Amino acid sequence: MLYYLFSELELAGETFARLFGYVTVRASVSFIIALLCATVIGRRIIDRLQMAQMGEIVRNLGLEGQTKKQGTPTMGGIIIIISILLPALLIGKLSNIYMLLMVIATIWLGALGFADDYLKIKRHNKDGMAGKYKIVGQVGIGLIVGLTMTFSPDITIRDDSMAVKATSTEVTENVSVSSDIKAAQTTIPFVKNNNLDYTWFTKWMGSEKTARTAGWVLFVIVVICAVTATSNGANLTDGIDGLATGVSAIIGVALLLMAYLGSSIIYASYLNIMYIPGSEELVVYMAAFIGALIGFLWYNAFPAQVFMGDTGSLTLGGIIAVFAILIRKELLLPLLCGIFFIEDISVMIQTLWFKMTKKRTGTGQRVFKMAPIHHHFQKEADPSANVLWNKPANGMHEAKITIRFWIISILLAALTFITLKIR
Amino acid sequence: MLYYLFSELELAGETFARLFGYVTVRASVSFIIALLCATVIGRRIIDRLQMAQMGEIVRNLGLEGQTKKQGTPTMGGIIIIISILLPALLIGKLSNIYMLLMVIATIWLGALGFADDYLKIKRHNKDGMAGKYKIVGQVGIGLIVGLTMTFSPDITIRDDSMAVKATSTEVTENVSVSSDIKAAQTTIPFVKNNNLDYTWFTKWMGSEKTARTAGWVLFVIVVICAVTATSNGANLTDGIDGLATGVSAIIGVALLLMAYLGSSIIYASYLNIMYIPGSEELVVYMAAFIGALIGFLWYNAFPAQVFMGDTGSLTLGGIIAVFAILIRKELLLPLLCGIFFIEDISVMIQTLWFKMTKKRTGTGQRVFKMAPIHHHFQKEADPSANVLWNKPANGMHEAKITIRFWIISILLAALTFITLKIR
Repeated sequence: MLYYLFSELELAGETFARLFGYVTVRASVSFIIALLCATVIGRRIIDRLQMAQMGEIVRNLGLEGQTKKQGTPTMGGIIIIISILLPALLIGKLSNIYMLLMVIATIWLGALGFADDYLKIKRHNKDGMAGKYKIVGQVGIGLIVGLTMTFSPDITIRDDSMAVKATSTEVTENVSVSSDIKAAQTTIPFVKNNNLDYTWFTKWMGSEKTARTAGWVLFVIVVICAVTATSNGANLTDGIDGLATGVSAIIGVALLLMAYLGSSIIYASYLNIMYIPGSEELVVYMAAFIGALIGFLWYNAFPAQVFMGDTGSLTLGGIIAVFAILIRKELLLPLLCGIFFIEDISVMIQTLWFKMTKKRTGTGQRVFKMAPIHHHFQKEADPSANVLWNKPANGMHEAKITIRFWIISILLAALTFITLKIR
Repeated sequence: MLYYLFSELELAGETFARLFGYVTVRASVSFIIALLCATVIGRRIIDRLQMAQMGEIVRNLGLEGQTKKQGTPTMGGIIIIISILLPALLIGKLSNIYMLLMVIATIWLGALGFADDYLKIKRHNKDGMAGKYKIVGQVGIGLIVGLTMTFSPDITIRDDSMAVKATSTEVTENVSVSSDIKAAQTTIPFVKNNNLDYTWFTKWMGSEKTARTAGWVLFVIVVICAVTATSNGANLTDGIDGLATGVSAIIGVALLLMAYLGSSIIYASYLNIMYIPGSEELVVYMAAFIGALIGFLWYNAFPAQVFMGDTGSLTLGGIIAVFAILIRKELLLPLLCGIFFIEDISVMIQTLWFKMTKKRTGTGQRVFKMAPIHHHFQKEADPSANVLWNKPANGMHEAKITIRFWIISILLAALTFITLKIR
């Protein structure tokens, strides 16, 4: 909203308003507002949650220091969601399709996570919402995003192979947009120009029109899978103080840089990457996202005064997936969000191996001391337990596990960046 | 060195070699090598240090959990220094004046810090090197850098007001360099184009030549002050697990982004900031610096298995200052390195107030429960002590203080970026 106010002021020739014309400045301001908002409202919301007895019901997992966590308020995700929406609404252009989609996704996923937490705590229903409703919610936002991208005329990309003559000012608007195309393209390494069109998979279907339609259907399916997998991955990752918060913020920084470089025709053509007209609003949004997470970390870092709950984790995962889809980087998610997927996979391996060995030998064996995998590192080894991988023998401090998982996330983000250049 | 190898290969038409032509790719690889190097050699060096009994002599400050730290090996800065130099030498162009200066600064400051640590531990001389030798060492590197910048013909800047015609490839080299100038210019907000020439302060001296010379002398003095203040600030900050490591890495990211934007004529003219020919090697160096710190954090995060010692902290502070000077951002250091300066100032305030009150009333009063300020937050309040600011009453967990100081650093880095746009 402030954007429009400042646009008006600009006509009156205010310096401050001119500053607001730069995406970099708007993103920085958005980041700072989100960060300060989270720290300021954080304290109050934590007190409220504590009074309303929205405390975490901690199951006894036999982990050191775990009983101290009993009673720590959960649902802190509310702090994150408010701190994202405030700067997004203040600084963002809501008429921009990308900003609009992100705001809708934030509210949609936030409501879904909130309902889940509420059922868990107030109704003492420890499993929360039935799995099928959660899936319906995640598929729902996937459909909204996928279909909007398929049909909205505002969502286009421009081929990066054009030579662009640019002079020394931020004049993206002036460049002719006649060559923008509507395509189900995405970015992956090892193919020509790093651009892959989903219709490539559906070529065998015959006529170009059928292949095009099938390509878009395939795209919508990929969108739904990406949202569901990332959302659940973030949900599983959220088991140690500050872990999901920090990992999401790191992923956010990588996504912000990609969005920024792809939103400017000058950078995009300089770096020879996909240019997406209008996506500069995503930079403003992502800056708010990162700011909100870092502000939340003020309270969520070990020893945590608040947990994000499903209100937070389901929302974060979903936002990351939707954002990656909008900037056509969804196929990089398995690498960039490696921690989420490792957590996902560790649970699958643990369950499958236990079932397999039980079937074969009668007694089930575990692969990890505990799943999701962050608890494996935290737990002391029990020599009498039937566990395949019993190291490290002494559990690691949870604060250290958090930082090490962050470091791995940073490494994965760097690797993701290199893939953009491999072709 | 690899750079030259790949340059040769490029002539033979290798794809992998072509990739190496991009600064972004070289910086990413440099970052990854540094990070992996630090984690791989870290474990070995920690074991070595432990065997050589290079343990920290922890003075009893009455802080919780402090006795556990007794015997933790110090001098871990060695890990950081090796992990910076390895990728810098492998990936960097050593013929580049900026890379050369950074490598010299790293070795010089590392040797200085090492000597200090060695005297402290092996000679059981708890104050380490005499203050005057430390100052001589810091002034020495300040002089080397300041004088090289004054006299080297390779160090120039280009005015950002020129319009540049750029096409869609990384072709910086092709642009004519005839307009490069040699000037003692720096970047600060609130002045025209954000460029301040030190000769502006010496204009009153009369003839242009005198003013120019005096301007360079002033510049060298500023360089020396920046190196000394930042180096000592980092030294004081290094008192809690992971604190100085993380804060330095955050500052490093901000400096890397500034260096990257200023090293490309296309970005520099797009954003209307100072263009510094040849400074892209600084991006490669800074990526190694950040990677080394993040890798070191693997062991240095709470609960720390190793401390960096003066070998680390004096080097980090010095590197940050020298780097900021080379990219002409030294006057932004008080904001960007705010944590270092707050730690500096907290010690000064504590000492001055104690002396003042002692003189006036006979009993000295303290402002903080303890200085440097990070220990203030850690210490439990003692109601009987004569302390001006006795909050928070319950000490904060050291892991939380670290994360909160990191968050403040991130906020300061964002503010620093905004200043680049204010004019």
